[in-house]
Amino acid sequence: MLEVKTPEEVLRLIEKEFEPCMRKEAVPLTDVLDRVLAENIAADEYVPDFDRSTVDGYAVRASDTFGCSDALPALLSLKGEVKMGQKAAVRVSHDTCVYVPTGGEIPEGADCAVMIEYTENYGDGTIGILKPGVPGMNLIFRGDDVVPGKVILKAGRILKPQDIGALAAIGRTQIPVFQKPRVGIISTGDELVPAEEKPGPGQVRDVNTPMLAAALRSFGAEAVSYGIVVDDEQLLQAKTELALRECDAVLLSGGSSAGVMDATCRIIERLGRLLLHGVAMKPGKPTILGKAGSKPLVGLPGHPVAAYFVTELFVLPLLARLENRNTHRYPVMAQLSENLGANHGRAQINGCRLEKVAGKLIASPIHSKSGLITQLAGADGYLMIDRDCEGLPKAAEVSVFWN
Amino acid sequence: MLEVKTPEEVLRLIEKEFEPCMRKEAVPLTDVLDRVLAENIAADEYVPDFDRSTVDGYAVRASDTFGCSDALPALLSLKGEVKMGQKAAVRVSHDTCVYVPTGGEIPEGADCAVMIEYTENYGDGTIGILKPGVPGMNLIFRGDDVVPGKVILKAGRILKPQDIGALAAIGRTQIPVFQKPRVGIISTGDELVPAEEKPGPGQVRDVNTPMLAAALRSFGAEAVSYGIVVDDEQLLQAKTELALRECDAVLLSGGSSAGVMDATCRIIERLGRLLLHGVAMKPGKPTILGKAGSKPLVGLPGHPVAAYFVTELFVLPLLARLENRNTHRYPVMAQLSENLGANHGRAQINGCRLEKVAGKLIASPIHSKSGLITQLAGADGYLMIDRDCEGLPKAAEVSVFWN
Repeated sequence: MLEVKTPEEVLRLIEKEFEPCMRKEAVPLTDVLDRVLAENIAADEYVPDFDRSTVDGYAVRASDTFGCSDALPALLSLKGEVKMGQKAAVRVSHDTCVYVPTGGEIPEGADCAVMIEYTENYGDGTIGILKPGVPGMNLIFRGDDVVPGKVILKAGRILKPQDIGALAAIGRTQIPVFQKPRVGIISTGDELVPAEEKPGPGQVRDVNTPMLAAALRSFGAEAVSYGIVVDDEQLLQAKTELALRECDAVLLSGGSSAGVMDATCRIIERLGRLLLHGVAMKPGKPTILGKAGSKPLVGLPGHPVAAYFVTELFVLPLLARLENRNTHRYPVMAQLSENLGANHGRAQINGCRLEKVAGKLIASPIHSKSGLITQLAGADGYLMIDRDCEGLPKAAEVSVFWN
Repeated sequence: MLEVKTPEEVLRLIEKEFEPCMRKEAVPLTDVLDRVLAENIAADEYVPDFDRSTVDGYAVRASDTFGCSDALPALLSLKGEVKMGQKAAVRVSHDTCVYVPTGGEIPEGADCAVMIEYTENYGDGTIGILKPGVPGMNLIFRGDDVVPGKVILKAGRILKPQDIGALAAIGRTQIPVFQKPRVGIISTGDELVPAEEKPGPGQVRDVNTPMLAAALRSFGAEAVSYGIVVDDEQLLQAKTELALRECDAVLLSGGSSAGVMDATCRIIERLGRLLLHGVAMKPGKPTILGKAGSKPLVGLPGHPVAAYFVTELFVLPLLARLENRNTHRYPVMAQLSENLGANHGRAQINGCRLEKVAGKLIASPIHSKSGLITQLAGADGYLMIDRDCEGLPKAAEVSVFWN
């Protein structure tokens, strides 16, 4: 019999037992939001490819403007105009200038741009410069943004809008990302009916399949539902084998009663190796983890709230491991709205609401028996109490992970 | 000429000028993740619909077990077994018990369940109870989770996995949500080429269209690209009118040079009303907001970093307003890695990286000229410095909004 592990031990076990294994695929830039980058991305050209002005104004030689002022403008002869999107055709020579719009190319010979606000057009081909320039002023130089070979994004990054902007800037429109992990969901239990059916006597609706599918999609995995399997070990094993063939990981939900937990363990042992049987956490104790080949098999508690937290805390990190995903989750700090008791010896996880009251962020724990999913509805996040902590007083600072 | 507004004033202006206007649609439960709920959701039945056991054990009358112990078990006669998903067929009468699995229905006559760990099966039809029960112990009662009429989710909620679980629990599989706002994106500028093309002399790639489309998608809006429009006021107006007919809001990106800004303002004035011309923020000053009928028209700076922040700070809240979305964004608290100067008189917004160093979360500002999008690539979030603040010292506590 395996011993019950702490949440930290479970995460270390996941790290130790599973390896990054997702295959790469090339995806068009328009579809890579929130996908996981599979390779470092380096530029192969200069961005921008030419020196640009950051202002509307006049490209000049700084030395021609030294010492000028409102009272004593530097008088430069206007040689022409740079058009957006075109090569600067004119050259700036001594005591001349060229009009240049924001983003336009700085003509050869010029070394800075003077904002139009600090100039005067006398209408006779002469421009008065009222404020001296210095070399480099109001310019972006060729390669200021990127030079060839510079890595702009690292493998493992979850691609955000600003990253997609950067990829566009360097002209990468086919992006190497990891395939989304395909995760099979099997719900077990003679009492379950699909959400769209009316439960008969003794029956309840299958909450876990749609909830887990949403949690997986939200993470960026693909959820494949294998439906509800009645409590029959052979059937369950056959369905598990099918899911293992078709998916990268399989979740078996519903094993809270001793009988189903035992059956799940036996199936995992026949198909691979049992790694974990029980987590010292409330809710979430009846959690099982195994490995068939290199693929994870997770037995989740049947109680929806427990299944939800186990998915958040262990299943998603496990999938992140398969993708070598660079995950960060930073909690928000809040004050506890009330005393919160805890069970010594087990980590406790509590859904909570967050609310700003008089400038303070207040976390109100949601009290629920672990089967009661509607009490988690509307939750803003959750907080964890360490297993060695016997509870927290009202107004204690707590870390809330929110979604 | 409209005066430049502070970021807070812009948000108030948005609140004042725009009304919730998105239409409702019914979407299957499997597809509502991250959609915005359009109505309060109340249950119309009891969940669970019967009293259930939360443990594997025996349903008993608590009074039959009072005073029992390991040394002196209460001896109850086993009347049968409750099967999962079936009506409990047997009744518990005085000094009898019935086996019940986790989640099984509590038979009539019983008022609590005793965990199997605290019982002994003598094999002769008698069960020894080693620990006394109390009424209600290890039970979930009918309606504990939901009673008819109870509102479980409020309109405006962005639907999360746990909410989808709750909707499944009450059998709601067609969910009233707001249609996603359709947002048109028009990029202007003679210097722009699509990301997949190689820029010629004086040209740069259009970063804003793919970046803004990703930001809109990430928020939960639908992005419609109207391509790159050359700097021609008539063409731009025609394209804007088309986008206004087809979309709920329109973004014009590229108006950083005075000429394009003026053209954008004139177009907005011809099609509706100009509400804002300039935000006291760095980057992001050249931001324009208008209204054509009830539809927002936003002129974004052409510089990608500025366009990104203006979208984050104003465009997404504007879309949230159209949906009456219940938005929360809680910052994470971090320590500044270095002194950070700021321009007195303008709010300053800085991309930053977040890193845990010796248990402390450290925010490292990313220094960039506002045109340089690749410097934002890999950013974890951003921080804002108030316009009245002249800068922040190293190790100052800062609020970081992250994505």
